[in-house]
Amino acid sequence: MKVVVVLSGGMDSSAALGWAKGVGGHAIIGALSFWYGSKHNDREWESAQEIADHYDVRIQRARLDFVADTFKSDLLKTGGEIPEGHYADPSMQRTVVPFRNGIMLAIAAGYAESLGAEAIVLGNHFGDHAVYPDCRKDFIDPMAAAIEAGTYAKIKLLSPFLKATKTDIAKHGLLWGVPFGLTWSCYKGGRLHCGKCGTCVERIEAFKEAGIKDPTEYLEA
Amino acid sequence: MKVVVVLSGGMDSSAALGWAKGVGGHAIIGALSFWYGSKHNDREWESAQEIADHYDVRIQRARLDFVADTFKSDLLKTGGEIPEGHYADPSMQRTVVPFRNGIMLAIAAGYAESLGAEAIVLGNHFGDHAVYPDCRKDFIDPMAAAIEAGTYAKIKLLSPFLKATKTDIAKHGLLWGVPFGLTWSCYKGGRLHCGKCGTCVERIEAFKEAGIKDPTEYLEA
Repeated sequence: MKVVVVLSGGMDSSAALGWAKGVGGHAIIGALSFWYGSKHNDREWESAQEIADHYDVRIQRARLDFVADTFKSDLLKTGGEIPEGHYADPSMQRTVVPFRNGIMLAIAAGYAESLGAEAIVLGNHFGDHAVYPDCRKDFIDPMAAAIEAGTYAKIKLLSPFLKATKTDIAKHGLLWGVPFGLTWSCYKGGRLHCGKCGTCVERIEAFKEAGIKDPTEYLEA
Repeated sequence: MKVVVVLSGGMDSSAALGWAKGVGGHAIIGALSFWYGSKHNDREWESAQEIADHYDVRIQRARLDFVADTFKSDLLKTGGEIPEGHYADPSMQRTVVPFRNGIMLAIAAGYAESLGAEAIVLGNHFGDHAVYPDCRKDFIDPMAAAIEAGTYAKIKLLSPFLKATKTDIAKHGLLWGVPFGLTWSCYKGGRLHCGKCGTCVERIEAFKEAGIKDPTEYLEA
C-alpha cells in the first residue's frame, strides 16, 4: 500500500518506518513530523530528518502553533519541569499533551488523502498505555474507523506495534537494521539524552531487556 | 455541561452555539474557529467573531497553515474555482477539504481537555452527507468514541443537528433567536454572498423551505 508515516524521530516511529519500508512491504510516499511546542520538538526534528534521509523518504513538518500556545502540558515549553522517574509513574501524566495522537492522526489522514495514499502508519505501542489514553486500543480502533469512514479513499490506519512492548520494538528494529543511534527520546530536549526522565528510563530499559548494546550517549545514567 | 463550540460563523455552527447556550442548557467556556486557507476563511472569521460577541462567548482562532499549504481542495486558496450549482452535485466533491471535520474535532478535543470542558459541540447536519464523508453518522460515531476514549475527561461530542436538515436548522434557529443575518455561508468569500455557489444555493433553499424571510443580501439570486 501507499502509506504516510507519522515520524517523530523517536525509536517507535523510526522502527515503524523501518517496518513499512522493509517487511511491511509498503511504498512510503511521505513522512509527517509535527511541531507542537514541546521542549524536545526541535531536537526531535533533527532526528526525524536524519531518519528520513537514511530511508530516502520525503519528510514534511506540520506546525501546530495553536497547540503550542493554548494546550496545557508539562511536555510543552509553556508548561512546568519534565518529571524524572519511570514512564509508568503517575507523575508522567503531566507530560500528556491532550489528544495529541488524535490530532496527529487526523491531520495525517487529510494529508494522506491529499497525497493519494491508502494508509497511515503510526508507531504507538503497548507500553504507551499506562499514561496515554490516546495510544490504547479503545482509542485506536474507533479512530481508525473514523478515518476510514471520513475519507473518500477509505484510508486505513496501520499500527504495527499495537501489541508490542518497547523491548519488542528494540529487538525487531535491530533485526530490520533501524538506525536507533540516530533517534531521539529525551523529553528535556538537550544536546544529549538526560538519562533521568521517563522516556530516557524507558529507552535504557528497552535496550537492556532486549540484550542490545544501547547506542545512546546519556548525560547521566 | 461545560462545552467548547466549533464555530465557523456559518448558519449551522451559529445555530449549534445558540442551541448550546439556550435550550441545550450548557455552559460555553470557549468557541473555536479554524483558519485553514479556504477562500472564505477571512470573511467567515468576521462572522464568527460577531456571533461570539452576540452570545458573549470567548472565541479563539486556530491557524492550520499546514493544511492551507499542502492539502488539495478547490475550497482552498491554492485550489481551482468554486463550482456553481447545487450543493448535492458531484462537482461539489472538489470543495471537500480532506478529513476537515476530523482535524477540527481532534484539535477541539485537546483544547477542550486543556480548558477543563466536558464536551464539544459540532453543528454538522443531515444535509452535509451528500458530499462530505466526515459529516456522516458512520464517521461521527467512531470519532466520538475515539475522543471519549482518548481523553482523561472522557470528552463527549454533541451533534444537535445530526438528524436535522438545513431547513430544520433555519426553523429552530428562528425559534431560538439565532442572528442568521450575521452568519456567512458563501464559499467564494467576497463582500456579499454570491448566490450561485452550492452553499449559497443551500442557504437560499433552507430559508425558503422554512418559510422564513432570508436576511441575506446576495450579489445575484
